[in-house]
Amino acid sequence: MQQIVQLQNSINQYISNKSYGASPVELYEPINYIMSLGGKRLRPCLLLMACDMFGGDVEQALAPALAIEVFHNFTLMHDDIMDKAPLRRGKPTVHEKWNANVAILSGDVMMVESNKLIMQVKDNILRPVLDVFNDTAVGVCEGQQIDMNFETRSDVRIDEYINMIRLKTAVLVGGALKMGALVGGADDAEGTLLYNFGEQLGIAFQLQDDILDVYGDPEKFGKQVGGDIISNKKTYLLIKALELAKGDTLNELNKWLSVEDFDASEKVETVKSIYNQLNIREQAEAEMNQYAEKAMLSFEKINLPDERKVILKEFADALLVREY
Amino acid sequence: MQQIVQLQNSINQYISNKSYGASPVELYEPINYIMSLGGKRLRPCLLLMACDMFGGDVEQALAPALAIEVFHNFTLMHDDIMDKAPLRRGKPTVHEKWNANVAILSGDVMMVESNKLIMQVKDNILRPVLDVFNDTAVGVCEGQQIDMNFETRSDVRIDEYINMIRLKTAVLVGGALKMGALVGGADDAEGTLLYNFGEQLGIAFQLQDDILDVYGDPEKFGKQVGGDIISNKKTYLLIKALELAKGDTLNELNKWLSVEDFDASEKVETVKSIYNQLNIREQAEAEMNQYAEKAMLSFEKINLPDERKVILKEFADALLVREY
Repeated sequence: MQQIVQLQNSINQYISNKSYGASPVELYEPINYIMSLGGKRLRPCLLLMACDMFGGDVEQALAPALAIEVFHNFTLMHDDIMDKAPLRRGKPTVHEKWNANVAILSGDVMMVESNKLIMQVKDNILRPVLDVFNDTAVGVCEGQQIDMNFETRSDVRIDEYINMIRLKTAVLVGGALKMGALVGGADDAEGTLLYNFGEQLGIAFQLQDDILDVYGDPEKFGKQVGGDIISNKKTYLLIKALELAKGDTLNELNKWLSVEDFDASEKVETVKSIYNQLNIREQAEAEMNQYAEKAMLSFEKINLPDERKVILKEFADALLVREY
Repeated sequence: MQQIVQLQNSINQYISNKSYGASPVELYEPINYIMSLGGKRLRPCLLLMACDMFGGDVEQALAPALAIEVFHNFTLMHDDIMDKAPLRRGKPTVHEKWNANVAILSGDVMMVESNKLIMQVKDNILRPVLDVFNDTAVGVCEGQQIDMNFETRSDVRIDEYINMIRLKTAVLVGGALKMGALVGGADDAEGTLLYNFGEQLGIAFQLQDDILDVYGDPEKFGKQVGGDIISNKKTYLLIKALELAKGDTLNELNKWLSVEDFDASEKVETVKSIYNQLNIREQAEAEMNQYAEKAMLSFEKINLPDERKVILKEFADALLVREY
């Protein structure tokens, strides 16, 4: 069994040693650029941990782990174009640093690169691993489209929101874990238990993200606290507040959603005070905990000795008490 | 052995029966739309012919054939955004009919769909078929980037141009044929001969396209004759003319390349007369014939009885004497 820090070192080293192609430079430089911006490397770490948990050879899981990270960064590169995002991890996005065409095409070739990497598994698991990979990829695309559709809707329900974050975020967490399990020698049923664990964990993780965006410690949170409020992003918190607010409170909330000229910190403070009034944080945390518990129930069903499961369990626990 | 028209009917029926997903509609409607715009279905037909030529079961080649057509249309959907093209096969492009975000994301999911389709081959050829598919996909992306780079360059050489069309167009023709051969039971060496045939045929095909754009019969050619001249597209004809023109002729050509306000038919006629003066058409046809001959040399090396090879050979011959 390898400790988390060992697995993180392995994947970071593997990522920095990988080269994608040389020419034309406009196609490959953006790949090196976005891959060098860092990030938590959460998904590849989960894949390695899942492989290790089932007693597999972590070396053999490095290429699939990188595949997941390259795929994830491809989706970020395209999402950033669609969201017109100027920054990614504090640096200019690819479409800002180069242009949108470069970001489209580099993203496309990253998708192919991730397919090439995921194929570096043994023949006997090639088809099941690819099936998980493709189903995951379809889910992520569907989630992004649903998220974009939400921007122009004012009637998004909580169940629709949960389904959106399931597709956009959680299926890739589940998929990474299942692929790691398959590489590690797990059968399909064990892989599916771990997939379910990951999907539920991913939903809890995204709900945590929504909470931290409003209630996170500005010194520890990597992004601007209140960014979701400023941009009227339909998070769990806002959707729940719109569901519960009545009378003057609802009017006040709707006013802040429609004003175009405003003082950012005033908007954040006012909307936050409405959330507080309606106990939104507590309800979001309760929902998050519910998914975390479901995740743990799936995890417990996996028939392995506790000592094999302890590292992934600790990692999952730590994910949900993070402050950034 | 099946006749071309039978194979075309099979693939057209298979294309029209295929559904890609239902929700969210913004993701899937554009796929049905672009796939319904038609086209020659050249690549999937070649794949079926290659399978049939090696005595394979054409039914088993339908999913991979569709994979190639879906992949091809994904690249068209993204290329049209990059090229700001308003029309595709006479109908509004996806980014015009919906918007660029929809075209980016629908294209992405088409890429995944093409991966799912290509996987519908038997286990024993899954890896080699996917290797061809991924290498082909990387080539197409590289070709598109090189083509975009040419737009801002005035010193493109013929060898660079040939390499660009090889990547952007010809590797997919070669790849389709090799994948069809593998599905049909060919070994890697036979598949590679057919790949080489396809790559060289694809280069000849694109050179033919360049020639037809200027010298095609307006009534038979599907696009505006002279479109490449109007948009200063760096085709074989223009690059060769820039290489050969001297003195006043070169000045005249450069003048037409730089004017922004012009009468389209005057520009087409003048540039065409410069091409005629420099015998550009004859040189382009000679280059095309050279690639067609190379293609046939590769084809002849394939160790199959002539009666098995006749249909693909006739199809290839017909491709290069087409008028549209």
